[in-house]
Formats: sequence, C-alpha cells, structure tokens
Amino acid sequence: MARKLADVVTGHPGRAAISLFALVIGGFTALLALPVAGADGEAMPLVDAAVTATSAVTVTGLTSLGPEHFSFVGHVIILLAIQVGGLGIVTLGAWLTLLVSRRLSLRTRMLSTESLGVSKLGEVPALVLTVVIFTFTIEALLAAVMLPVFVSQLGAGEGTFHAVFYAVSAFANAGFTLGATGLDHPVVLTTINIGVFAGALGFPVVYMLYRMVFYRAPMNLHTRLTLEVTVLLLVGGAILIAAFEWANPATLGGLSTWDKLHQALFASGMTRSGGFSTYDVMDQTDQTLLVTCVLMFIGGGAGSTAGGIKVTTLAVLLLAIVAEIRGDEHIRVHQREIPTTLVRVAVAVVTAGALLVLTAVVALTAVTGQGLATTTFEALSAFGTVGLTTGLTASAPEAGQWILVGLMFIGRVGIITLSAGLAARHTPTFYRYPTERPIIG
Amino acid sequence: MARKLADVVTGHPGRAAISLFALVIGGFTALLALPVAGADGEAMPLVDAAVTATSAVTVTGLTSLGPEHFSFVGHVIILLAIQVGGLGIVTLGAWLTLLVSRRLSLRTRMLSTESLGVSKLGEVPALVLTVVIFTFTIEALLAAVMLPVFVSQLGAGEGTFHAVFYAVSAFANAGFTLGATGLDHPVVLTTINIGVFAGALGFPVVYMLYRMVFYRAPMNLHTRLTLEVTVLLLVGGAILIAAFEWANPATLGGLSTWDKLHQALFASGMTRSGGFSTYDVMDQTDQTLLVTCVLMFIGGGAGSTAGGIKVTTLAVLLLAIVAEIRGDEHIRVHQREIPTTLVRVAVAVVTAGALLVLTAVVALTAVTGQGLATTTFEALSAFGTVGLTTGLTASAPEAGQWILVGLMFIGRVGIITLSAGLAARHTPTFYRYPTERPIIG
Ligand SMILES: [K+]
Ligand SMILES: [K+]
Repeated sequence: MARKLADVVTGHPGRAAISLFALVIGGFTALLALPVAGADGEAMPLVDAAVTATSAVTVTGLTSLGPEHFSFVGHVIILLAIQVGGLGIVTLGAWLTLLVSRRLSLRTRMLSTESLGVSKLGEVPALVLTVVIFTFTIEALLAAVMLPVFVSQLGAGEGTFHAVFYAVSAFANAGFTLGATGLDHPVVLTTINIGVFAGALGFPVVYMLYRMVFYRAPMNLHTRLTLEVTVLLLVGGAILIAAFEWANPATLGGLSTWDKLHQALFASGMTRSGGFSTYDVMDQTDQTLLVTCVLMFIGGGAGSTAGGIKVTTLAVLLLAIVAEIRGDEHIRVHQREIPTTLVRVAVAVVTAGALLVLTAVVALTAVTGQGLATTTFEALSAFGTVGLTTGLTASAPEAGQWILVGLMFIGRVGIITLSAGLAARHTPTFYRYPTERPIIG
Repeated sequence: MARKLADVVTGHPGRAAISLFALVIGGFTALLALPVAGADGEAMPLVDAAVTATSAVTVTGLTSLGPEHFSFVGHVIILLAIQVGGLGIVTLGAWLTLLVSRRLSLRTRMLSTESLGVSKLGEVPALVLTVVIFTFTIEALLAAVMLPVFVSQLGAGEGTFHAVFYAVSAFANAGFTLGATGLDHPVVLTTINIGVFAGALGFPVVYMLYRMVFYRAPMNLHTRLTLEVTVLLLVGGAILIAAFEWANPATLGGLSTWDKLHQALFASGMTRSGGFSTYDVMDQTDQTLLVTCVLMFIGGGAGSTAGGIKVTTLAVLLLAIVAEIRGDEHIRVHQREIPTTLVRVAVAVVTAGALLVLTAVVALTAVTGQGLATTTFEALSAFGTVGLTTGLTASAPEAGQWILVGLMFIGRVGIITLSAGLAARHTPTFYRYPTERPIIG
C-alpha cells in the first residue's frame, strides 16, 4: 500500500499535486458551506464557499464576500485553509526542488518508478518538519510584533486572533483580512510588508539564508538572483507607483511625503503577491494599474507561496537577452553559467501563463460584460494568486466566479506542475538532423 | 569615398538603416507640409505631416487626418512614400538576411570592417533590382484585377489612380485608403486581402516560391514555417473573430453567413498587418479587440513590410516549448534542427517589443487621458505598423501624436536593427564557469 502510494506520488508528482490540492479545496469548501461558518448562522451559496476556499488554499485573497459575511468559526476555517494551503505549497515546492536538483543522477530512476521506494518518500516527513518549524517560528515572530497594537485596539481575545490571522495571512502571501481595522497602523503595515517579503522569497531562499547565518554556507545562485530581482522589483515598483500616484487625491495625494513613500513601497510589495491594499485599487491611475499588472504577472520567488511566473524565470530571460546583446555564447552571471536549456523552460512557463490569462480574459469579458482593463487586472490577480481586486470577483455572475476559481487553481498548481514536469524529463536522442536557421525578428 | 561609405554601411548596418529611414521620413514630412499637399491648398500643421509621412514610409497606416484633407498631389506624395518605404524595408530585410545567412563564414570579417569592400556592396544593386521587379510585377497584377471595378465606379482617370494606390497600399501592407469608396466590393476586398497576404509573407518567402515554381528548388525551413504559421493565424483569427462578432449588429451581425465569413477572414488578415478595415474597430466586442491585439503584436513574415515580432519568431518560441514538453534535447521540425541560440534571439525580440509597447502605453495614458484598452490597442497598432485605429492617433494631443510617430519608427526600424545586430555577432570566449541551475517557474 505504502509502496503503491509511493509509486503514484513519485511517478506523477504533477498529478499527485493536482489531486491533493483539489481534495483540500473540496474539504474546505464543504466546511465553509456549513451554516456555522456564515455571519448570521445561515449557509452561504456554494459558489461563495468555493471561491473563498480556493482563494484561501491557493493563498490568493480574492473573495466574493467581505469578511463581515463570516462568523468567527468561518474566520478560523479560513485561517486553517491558508495555513494548510501555504504549508502545502511550500512543502511541495521544496520537495519538487529536491527531485529536480537530483535530476541528472536520477534521470533514469525518475522515469521508471520501479526503483523508487521508501527512501525517497522517507525524506518527506523530515522536509515537512523543517518547513513547519520555519513557518511557525516566523509567523510567531510576526504575530508577537503586531500583538500589542491589536490588543490595545480590540482587547486581548480578538486582538490575539487578529495578530495570529494577519501573521499567517502575511507570511503565506494570502492577503485575507478581517476588515480594515488596524491595517493603517505603521507597525502593522511594516510587519505585514516584511512578512509578505519573507514569504515571497520562498523556502529555498529562506533555508539558504538560515544556513548562511548559522553554518557560514556560501550563497547559491538561486538565492542571489531571487534577492536581486526581488529588491529591484520592490524598489523600482515603489518609485513608479509613487510617481504615478503622487498627486492623486484618492490614493497618496493627501499624505505626507514620508507616508507617500511608505505606502508606495507597501503597494509595490503587495503586487507580488501579498494582495493587501490600503486604498481602492480602481482609484489608482491607469499607469499604476499597468505597472501593477506587470508586477502581478511576474510574482515572487520559486518555491514560495507567491504566484506568477517567478522572479528567477524573469532573471533567466533577462540574462539570456544580455548574453544575446553582448554576443556571449554562454549565459553567465556571478561567475556561474546557466544552462541554455533553462531558457526554454522559462519561455514555456511565460508562454503558458500568458496564454492562460488571455483565454481567461476573453471568457471573463464574455461572461461579465466588463471592459478589458478590469477583466485583465482581475485575471492577472487570480493567476498570480495576488488578491488585489477591481471588485470583479464579488460582482461577477456565478459563471465568472467559477472562471476565477479555475484560474486561481491552475495559476497555483499548474505552474508548479508544469515546471516540475518540464524540468524532470529529458529524453536523450541518438540521431541528429541538419541545422537550419529560419529568419526571425 | 565609395570605400568609406561601404565601411559605414557594412560596419554598422543598424545605424545605416536608422539614418536612412529618418532621412526619408524627414524628406516626405517636408513635402507633405507644403501647401500644395493640403486639400484646400493650405499647409497642414507639421505634426500632421510628420505623422502621415512616418505612417506612410513605415507602411503603418495610422493617420491624424483623413484622406479628405489631402489634395491629389498629397495623395501622390503618400503613394510615393509608401512605395519608397515598402521597397526600402524589403530591400533592407533581404540585404540583412544575406549578411546574416553568411554569418558563420563572415564572422570575423563582419567585426573588422577592413576586409569588407566593393564586392559586398556590389551585390546591393542586383538585390534592389530583383526586389523592384518582383514588387512592380505583383503590384501591376493586383491593380489590373481591381481596375475594372474602380473605373466603372469613378471613371478612367480617378479609377486608375485608385487601382494603383490600393495595389501599392495593399502589397506594402500600408493600409492607407482614399476614402471608403469601393472597399466593400468583393473583388476589391479579395484582391486587397491577397495583396496583403503576399506582402506579409516577405521577400525571402516570395523569392523561394518563385524559385520552387520555376527552378524546382526544394522549400527551405524559413518558407515552410512562415507559410504554416501565417495560414494558422489567418484561419484561427478568422474563426475567433467570426465567433465573437457573429451577432454584433455594428460589425458582422447584419450580413449573410457567407459575407460574415468573408469579412472575418478579411479582418483576420488585416491584423497582421494590412490595417484596412470595413467597419469601425471600436464597434468590435472586447474579445475581438483582445484577439486583434495579440495578432497585431505577432505581425507578419520576417523580411516583409509587415511589422510585429514576426511569425517565425513565434514559431521558434512555440517549437522550443514543444521540445521542452517532449523532453527533446534539440529543437526539431520538418527533419531539421533549429539552433538553441535562436531561442535567445526570439526571447530578446519579444521582450524588447513588449517593453517598448508597455512604456509607450504608460506615456500615452498620461498624455491622452484615455483608458488602457484604447491606448494599448493604438500602441500595438503603431508598434506592429498595422494601422487599425481606435481614433486615438487623430484625437490625441500633439505630444501623443509624437509618441506614436516614435513608436512607428522604432517598431519598424528597431526590430530589424535589433535582430540584425543580435544575429550578426557572436564573441567566442575561451573560459568557462561552473554551471548552476536556479529554480524557476
Ligand atoms: K495573495
Ligand atoms: K499597415
């Protein structure tokens, strides 16, 4: 039985991931559809339960019902869904990374499930344990910082729940809120931004940083590239948002210079893919909306709870372009070479993501009758599991909400699966064809 | 002197192309700014002359003034600008192809201009002659087919000019019209579609087809890929447009089934990048607008008067993805291998194009105050030298019109230059770094 399970899971990690996520989402949908989860003790429509459960497990944050429509029990269920979803994503990412990093030596074994046995699955509990310890430690730290603020505002009981909820929601990049209370407090704002930042780096990077600090391990290329691109996008995004919203009275216009910069940095960080917002997304200028769309599509670090195509995918594509412009035969960075085949994987990830979003936008415009700007923004937010909303998730007819559920699900599971599937197999061939260069560009 | 010119041109084909285009556009701007070019004998504003001249020389078709604002002399100047621009683009494309196709053996010579001499430039006249003969022959055929229709509608003189103007405008993919007269006639519609189709294939393909027919030459990979992707996009686009406009009373809704299909095929062909339209672009559904945007970005064949990233660039990216999904080490198609380095060039072309359009959209929203859908459509139309318009080119303030002028210019010259620049140099390096795979996707 255990052996058979091992075969299924390691033979088709992609299928296993999809089934597992669908199962967990189904379970939480059922829980949220119970009368006890609704604010007034009445069961909510199935589609709303499904949107909320999918949004929580995929840590997206798009909702069809505001937090006031859920009871305390409902909020606890959402918190659990975020925690389970976030841990699941990170563990899965870490495990797939483990598989992929051993690809070369394991190539044959990966393809024939025969020789895969308990030793492989035996590592999973240790991996889960490490991920859980790291996650709980960081979440506890974040909650502890926010605790005094929430307790002074809401009392001990509700204040503690708020601190825990926001710590989990931030580190998991979930973007779920309990209403607007306290989000404008600078300590909460900063803590959430840090939590989202750390969560969006991804477990491989956090674990590397831990080993660097405690074991003096040298930084690997993945960590360096993730940090560089993340900081670049965070700061670059903040500068653009500050510039485009500086004089907008509906967003940053009325604030002090310091608050403008602070909130622009917050808004920039939230696009990839925290999803918290301090003002209405649709009040932003069109220029900021476009910048936000681009940042949402890029997303966060690989193996993190952030979505999108991931910052290292962007890095590989940009480095390929730099190599091309320089006329270098090999892609080099930080005295390392990146295999050219990785460019193909990056192209596949970006193209698959773009095609998915385009198809969803066509479907959403047809179903909702809303314009292209609104539907594109909401589709990118769902695909990137960001959670910033134009209000479309709430106002769309049921068919549109199911489309967004599908988009969150594929956006979360599909890209992990795709990249694992792509990275894990390379069929050697023993014949060659003559080379011919079509003219391009 | 001749030697020095040869050095400049072959040493920096990119710079030479840019200077040449700027010079030709400047000349036609001056001509169109003359009072004699205006409908009422009065000089038009410089920006309108510049928009029209840039649009004609880059064969885009976006205009700030309708055809009724130009005198007969003005229309002749536009016709000349289209012919000169179209021939220039095709010749340049053919010449750069020649340079690039000899890249391997010429690598060293390309980089040091010393050994490049008259023999290289000596081929240019022959090349220009071939291009001119092909172009005039095809244009004469197209004009001959449309002549009876226009003559019966407008009389011998004006009818002949119309036939010649539309033949040149169609084969050059320019999209310029003389007013709506006759465009709804099925013979004219079909002839224009065929002219645009042939023009958008590109000279390398047309020349290959000629050699196949008359010299039984075997079809090369470039021609095969261009034909396949072009037909796929033409038919696929027509099916999507027909589906999305079938019941739209403002576009296809009121027509017979046969006319719906015919006009959908016409509209699909015009997106890449003929630019003629039989109904107002903004009357289309949002779904069709999105499909049109994607097709405009893709554009036509390499070395043609069409713009965009080119169909073979798309083909290389798609083939790379197929190879990745299959797990093939090499990119294979039609029993040929495509070098992996070409994927990097394709990535560079697409990314450069996307960045250019995004930047232009941000600038256009800021300057015109129009929404993202409108500005994105117009920016893509200018970048892809398509000429389909939301009306923004005419209604934008002067700053916006200059942005569109810049976009047409870079969209036309930049991508040729970029790809030539990229394809023409490869610096060999004699040291290697250790390989490291960042986690992506
Ligand atoms: K989120
Ligand atoms: K055009």
